[in-house]
Amino acid sequence: DPNLKVFTLNSNRQLAEEIARVIGVELGKCSVQRFSDGEVQINIEESIRGCDVFVIQSTSSPVNEHLMELLIMIDALKRASAKTINIVMPYYGYARQDRKARAREPITAKLVANLLETAGATRVITLDLHAPQIQGFFDIPTDHLMGVPILADYFQHKDLNGDIVIVSPDHGGVTRARKMSERLKAPIAIIDKRRPKPNVAEVMNIVGNIEGKVAILIDDIIDTAGTITLAANALVENGALEVYACCTHPVLSGPAIERIENSKIKELVVTNSIALSEEKLSGKIKQLSVAALIGEAIIRVHEHQSVSTLFD
Amino acid sequence: DPNLKVFTLNSNRQLAEEIARVIGVELGKCSVQRFSDGEVQINIEESIRGCDVFVIQSTSSPVNEHLMELLIMIDALKRASAKTINIVMPYYGYARQDRKARAREPITAKLVANLLETAGATRVITLDLHAPQIQGFFDIPTDHLMGVPILADYFQHKDLNGDIVIVSPDHGGVTRARKMSERLKAPIAIIDKRRPKPNVAEVMNIVGNIEGKVAILIDDIIDTAGTITLAANALVENGALEVYACCTHPVLSGPAIERIENSKIKELVVTNSIALSEEKLSGKIKQLSVAALIGEAIIRVHEHQSVSTLFD
Ligand SMILES: Nc1ncnc2c1ncn2[C@@H]1O[C@H](COP(=O)(O)O)[C@@H](O)[C@H]1O
Ligand SMILES: Nc1ncnc2c1ncn2[C@@H]1O[C@H](COP(=O)(O)O)[C@@H](O)[C@H]1O
Repeated sequence: DPNLKVFTLNSNRQLAEEIARVIGVELGKCSVQRFSDGEVQINIEESIRGCDVFVIQSTSSPVNEHLMELLIMIDALKRASAKTINIVMPYYGYARQDRKARAREPITAKLVANLLETAGATRVITLDLHAPQIQGFFDIPTDHLMGVPILADYFQHKDLNGDIVIVSPDHGGVTRARKMSERLKAPIAIIDKRRPKPNVAEVMNIVGNIEGKVAILIDDIIDTAGTITLAANALVENGALEVYACCTHPVLSGPAIERIENSKIKELVVTNSIALSEEKLSGKIKQLSVAALIGEAIIRVHEHQSVSTLFD
Repeated sequence: DPNLKVFTLNSNRQLAEEIARVIGVELGKCSVQRFSDGEVQINIEESIRGCDVFVIQSTSSPVNEHLMELLIMIDALKRASAKTINIVMPYYGYARQDRKARAREPITAKLVANLLETAGATRVITLDLHAPQIQGFFDIPTDHLMGVPILADYFQHKDLNGDIVIVSPDHGGVTRARKMSERLKAPIAIIDKRRPKPNVAEVMNIVGNIEGKVAILIDDIIDTAGTITLAANALVENGALEVYACCTHPVLSGPAIERIENSKIKELVVTNSIALSEEKLSGKIKQLSVAALIGEAIIRVHEHQSVSTLFD
């Protein structure tokens, strides 16, 4: 269909190639570079007049570079008379700044939504938002895809050494763990961090039965990996047979890789919502592709079909 | 006045300190840092409720970092109930992307204006925009200050070796050269680059009399310094006694410093609209401060007085 165009910017070129293959299109011709002073220079090298355009870009690190590439691309597409400008953000950066937790904080997740709309986005397709409320930050349609089925599918087809239990590393993630447990027909457990008194170290209390079981920790984002590695070690200390971990978005900044390598985690399963360097991929990390899921969503949006069956 | 608050972000801390001294205020307390994954983290550490807030930030390199700091700061100020949010951008990045020169180009200078307004800016104070038309990209008031008087003043008080001539390095800069020449009561000349035939090197034709004179080249931005150093060398080859160069915005990216050092330019005079590293400042570059000019503009805006007499 000549009215469907898929472009990629610099954050996820490999995923975009895969998505294009799934859909059966070539990626749109476009160069995204920098002028000598670091300003973003974009050249769209084919007509997109009257087309449904999909732009694939996660606002992963370097987040400000990737976000500005996206905003400038949207501006260029709008001025080049695209019919619709659909932003595919497998990872939505700044999602953790989604409320004023303290006085005078920004709500950057809302700012980003406003910036995308101001630039000219007409729809946003994203995956496992840190808070589903971020959908409501937009006045344009959003499609919120889920990574849990892909992660669950991997463990379903893996030979595990015993009965499994799905573990949420904190209270905030219980809904996600519950979804995973339904798919894997397994019970859940929760890590309940408590500080008994001020200035006393936190105690990792485990709610639920994990003894002798294969524990699968699940989170949406693993960033510095502090929470998840402490949780894994606590599970082993409390009698878990072995510990896997999984998440949708492998941010993996700072000490993350080192912490994971030195932890009791046997394998960390993630998606390619964020591209990982070869260096990060070696070791314990297994990366699953969201290309089929996103490709399907793009086709349905383009054909005006419901995307909602892809939501869980 | 407790209702006047001046904050700085990371692009021009030294200039902001100077501006605060000129005005006689302390800079507002605020930390502008990065989370482990590179996302901007801003904490405003004093109340600004009901205040006229001025935020000093050039969108100089790294432009996308500096722009996002600014947008996020504006968002935080807005949510913290600032009365007015006045953006002081001594250097307006992306100003050269101010029109569609080719098909399907973005107009990033306009996008930036829209982003600032969307975030919540209520006024913009800037200096020597690459194109004055960028003022019209905003629907909020803008104050457009001029660097020429500061540059002219420097040369007026300098002992020069002979009669001077102000030279524009291209056609686009003639208005600026004319303003400088009026202040210095000197004639102007123009470098008229021409390509006699396709695929033949450009010829530097000089319109105006420069022989035996002290030539002062003037431009708004010096980026890679290609144009200005070729112009300087052409002036010397055509009989100029010596050549100075000046500009408002020292972008100085890539080979700029090396080119300037190896050129016939005796001294390059710039403003501190863009902060320069110690390393760049050694050598031929002289940096003049715009703190007094900007400080005066801030006071007048805060006191609802006209800023227009600062315009030239
Ligand atoms: N990029 C980031 N890295 C680490 N923490 C963040 C980041 N962005 C926001 N936060 C903080 O994370 C907290 C929200 O995380 P959560 O409680 O998991 O929703 C807030 O206190 C934020 O200030
Ligand atoms: N950051 C930049 N560095 C170099 N050239 C740029 C930059 N931004 C825009 N341009 C180009 O510079 C030209 C405009 O410069 P000018 O003719 O001096 O107004 C346009 O062709 C732009 O594509």
